Amino acid sequence: MKIGVFDSGIGGLTVVKSLLEHQLFEEIIYFGDTARVPYGSKDKTTIIRYAIEAVEFFKNFDIDLMIVACNTVSAHALDEMREVSTYPIIGVVEAGVLATANALEDKNSNILILGTKATINSKAYEIGLTKLKFKNFHAKATGLFVPFVEDEIYSGDILEATFRHYFSDSKTPDAIILGCTHFPLISDALKNYFSKETILIHSGDAIVEYLELNFEFSKKYPQPKLDFFASEDPEALRAVGKKWLNLEEDK
Amino acid sequence: MKIGVFDSGIGGLTVVKSLLEHQLFEEIIYFGDTARVPYGSKDKTTIIRYAIEAVEFFKNFDIDLMIVACNTVSAHALDEMREVSTYPIIGVVEAGVLATANALEDKNSNILILGTKATINSKAYEIGLTKLKFKNFHAKATGLFVPFVEDEIYSGDILEATFRHYFSDSKTPDAIILGCTHFPLISDALKNYFSKETILIHSGDAIVEYLELNFEFSKKYPQPKLDFFASEDPEALRAVGKKWLNLEEDK
Repeated sequence: MKIGVFDSGIGGLTVVKSLLEHQLFEEIIYFGDTARVPYGSKDKTTIIRYAIEAVEFFKNFDIDLMIVACNTVSAHALDEMREVSTYPIIGVVEAGVLATANALEDKNSNILILGTKATINSKAYEIGLTKLKFKNFHAKATGLFVPFVEDEIYSGDILEATFRHYFSDSKTPDAIILGCTHFPLISDALKNYFSKETILIHSGDAIVEYLELNFEFSKKYPQPKLDFFASEDPEALRAVGKKWLNLEEDK
Repeated sequence: MKIGVFDSGIGGLTVVKSLLEHQLFEEIIYFGDTARVPYGSKDKTTIIRYAIEAVEFFKNFDIDLMIVACNTVSAHALDEMREVSTYPIIGVVEAGVLATANALEDKNSNILILGTKATINSKAYEIGLTKLKFKNFHAKATGLFVPFVEDEIYSGDILEATFRHYFSDSKTPDAIILGCTHFPLISDALKNYFSKETILIHSGDAIVEYLELNFEFSKKYPQPKLDFFASEDPEALRAVGKKWLNLEEDK
């Protein structure tokens, strides 16, 4: 199976990491729209326009499935993308909702949803959780975590001050949905702030769980073919990819 | 005189504010490329491409002068813009260098240059200051200030932790060049951290100083015609414009 992974930038590589760990695919093509990142502060019309361009991009590669690793795109543009697509498309929001439901037995569990402004404004996670009978959740736009992660700030004073800024009136949640591909990189700091017991829902793991439920995987691919594309500075994206995914130089 | 003011987003409104205070122009047309902001993390080729599109945009309005309010564009794309332009173009970097030189008598003054990654990488301020015989300066990319200002964080714990992160090895400077149109909004916090005596160089005031030196202004325009354009969500830009510039609703 040959798949395309789309993200607004480099964050979606955290999803590729999960896919590689589970050796599900023969070939993975990654496209990051690095020239126009971030999407999280853009409006719905613009997000849809960019997302449809990504669907067209992947038509060049004869893929079997497209994974939208970007929460903002998954929350806003999935229907419009599917209308113009020639292959199936799945997004991290539906996968994240399912993974949350699978992780929590009690429908009264206290769930904190984090994401960019655009993701939170869409209410996509809340709508999904409501359908699955959860009722005790609240959502918070925590866009500042994105530039922190891009500056490699994963712990320390700045992050702690920002947690207090965002969460001073939040109770310790049973689960946190990391509704942005950048946020897994501050998982440890979030657990330190709230509690070691808090369950963190990671888009990459959620996608793997969703795929294994919905598709038949008869074979493992320990050495998949990997290709990286970016709308700006593909060299930089490849360098981050190699670092985050622990790839050999010749990959 | 009819002028165009170009910025990557809303930050350039701080420059418009200075222009309005000095009543220099009969008509001001503002264009913010809000669909593609921020430019500060983009590469030179992309910045030049976007900047040239802005030059084309202003050809629709028969302007007499274009002011580039964005430091990142001023640092990277001014020559390329001038090649395709039919009107003169001035940028905030050359104005900021001149304003710094006018504010500091001693060529050994200690100058701290702040800006986005792209502005700092260009070394545009350092090249300008070196030409004017300054030698005691250092530059720091402080891109996190941009999302803080956009989230209306102008003081408090997060900003102080970030100052310590960026400036723990910086001596108190004689002057700080605020090399990004967002940074004037954290002027007070910067002065609190360093010293009340530190001179802050503000792009808007620097542009006014530069204009008054290089152009003849025989008349004042207390009620200039103002038009705002944005590549995304012009309503939001107009709302911020009215707030920052204290405009009446009917303007």
